[in-house]
Amino acid sequence: MTTSREIRLKSRPSGVPTADNFELATVTLADPGPGEVQVRNSWMTVDPYMRGRMNDVRSYAPPFELGEAMQGGAVGEVVASNDPSFKAGDAVQSFLGWREAFNAPAAAVQRLETHGLPPQAFLGVAGMPGLTAYVGLLKIAALKDGDVVFVSAAAGAVGQVVCQIAKLKGNTVIGSVGGPEKVAYLKELGVDHVIDYKAEPDLTAALARAAPDGIDVYFENVGGAHLEAALMAARPFGRFAFCGMISQYNDTDLGAGTRGLIMVVGKQLRLEGFIVSSHFDMMPAFVKEMAGWIAQGKVKARETVEEGIENAPAAFLKLFKGENLGKMLVKLS
Amino acid sequence: MTTSREIRLKSRPSGVPTADNFELATVTLADPGPGEVQVRNSWMTVDPYMRGRMNDVRSYAPPFELGEAMQGGAVGEVVASNDPSFKAGDAVQSFLGWREAFNAPAAAVQRLETHGLPPQAFLGVAGMPGLTAYVGLLKIAALKDGDVVFVSAAAGAVGQVVCQIAKLKGNTVIGSVGGPEKVAYLKELGVDHVIDYKAEPDLTAALARAAPDGIDVYFENVGGAHLEAALMAARPFGRFAFCGMISQYNDTDLGAGTRGLIMVVGKQLRLEGFIVSSHFDMMPAFVKEMAGWIAQGKVKARETVEEGIENAPAAFLKLFKGENLGKMLVKLS
Repeated sequence: MTTSREIRLKSRPSGVPTADNFELATVTLADPGPGEVQVRNSWMTVDPYMRGRMNDVRSYAPPFELGEAMQGGAVGEVVASNDPSFKAGDAVQSFLGWREAFNAPAAAVQRLETHGLPPQAFLGVAGMPGLTAYVGLLKIAALKDGDVVFVSAAAGAVGQVVCQIAKLKGNTVIGSVGGPEKVAYLKELGVDHVIDYKAEPDLTAALARAAPDGIDVYFENVGGAHLEAALMAARPFGRFAFCGMISQYNDTDLGAGTRGLIMVVGKQLRLEGFIVSSHFDMMPAFVKEMAGWIAQGKVKARETVEEGIENAPAAFLKLFKGENLGKMLVKLS
Repeated sequence: MTTSREIRLKSRPSGVPTADNFELATVTLADPGPGEVQVRNSWMTVDPYMRGRMNDVRSYAPPFELGEAMQGGAVGEVVASNDPSFKAGDAVQSFLGWREAFNAPAAAVQRLETHGLPPQAFLGVAGMPGLTAYVGLLKIAALKDGDVVFVSAAAGAVGQVVCQIAKLKGNTVIGSVGGPEKVAYLKELGVDHVIDYKAEPDLTAALARAAPDGIDVYFENVGGAHLEAALMAARPFGRFAFCGMISQYNDTDLGAGTRGLIMVVGKQLRLEGFIVSSHFDMMPAFVKEMAGWIAQGKVKARETVEEGIENAPAAFLKLFKGENLGKMLVKLS
């Protein structure tokens, strides 16, 4: 018998979520039943896509249920096992984040092979955000030699990895971020041109200055003015990987619209959306390659860490204000 | 010595072109010089893409020059030849439309193999518009069995061919057109659902009714509300072929913007623009297949015909008012 605190969805937000949409609850966990394991989470992730699951709309992931613990990636340790496939002390990952501990069937958790990396890396650079960067840049946008790459939200969990993969492949990279701290971080990563969009009255003009000969690849995390700027700057046969549009996740309607789509015809552009879970078959190859890049010092990854389950909602809300540098994580134990 | 009348670009339009932007001139043609042929055009084409060439902006085709004859597809007959590769009476095609006759180097004209079709078919169903439909539907949108296909400007030169290729491949087709005459034409072609967008206050709702289970392919000729409706109706992994956006060709700025692009992420859509000249390598295979379909009665094609070079500007201007059913052509002799 032990207890666990968890964050539940208390009410569905309309527009920007607030702390009132969440509630902290404490549950008692019995010993794990037959075929079950008990896991104590050490880290959990908060990600922008979770905003969509707060709505009562079936999308690629089902909505969170009101009054129930939210879900998301987590890493932790088996503390008790009633299944032969795990024993106490095993490092595991699961989608049962937003809680300190849980009992679950053994099939709901996955053994964590750390490849010498700290476990929370598998919630970021070596996990879903890293794979998202890898798939979007190399498969969806089909990066090739000589491409000029534009990345929005370039200091975020995914963007920082996109920038570094493009750089280690020898490409020219332009990153857009908000604020001087993030500008400095991208310069430290070797990004060729950094745009502070908060300081630019005209993003299209700023991108045209940073890429006077145009861009070939756009990694889309933001939408809106960033997408318009990319459409205007694109060279013929440019490829846009649509990973997300954080500027629109809190919109209650379809928003203001994106101008310049006529460029898609004349420039023969390809704009393609993707969801990383459609590409999980690439995870083993990705983890191996990424662990090598990290070991060689070719990829670094920043984290912004909040401590304690009670601060998970605040960590999540910060994503929409751009208050994270790199991967936003919550340390639970 | 003979004379030819031709249409010249008199001034560049801002917004919608008018008759004042064109002027009719008469030129005298000497006998063809060494290596030259003299051709009398029998038919010329007017196409929406020519609007872009009236602007002083380098796009995929260079701008028309002020005070000079405009250019575009034409078919005709060699009337005199000073080159061994052609003789009087040969049927030829060229990009030297907008004029009744011309002298040109033999390399500027191409022998017309008619495959039993009337020569003007090579300005429409068996020419560039037909190839545009073929490439966009089969290569760019990668049509497959079971796809539900939505086509805008579906009674136009390209749209009518898209509808018929999709039908002969066994797909379900939804066409959008303006006005009852075009609705009747599409029904005659066997299109499954026809939307008269001029009679629909809400195109998104109309498409949702016509395609309650969604669409897989959108053939984009129009832009704006049509594109928004297609984004909302798209099923996961939908493919959009961006052929043109006639609703925006006369815009003097970037226009109002398209909403709903966030759907590209969650539905994992692919939006791809193309220009038919990038796919001219497919022309021989296309002409052969299309001639077969026409011979078998599987593809029909309507034409709207204006007579005389002096009416070419009016024919062109009608395109932007949707006053053509099928391919708009000008008969010159």
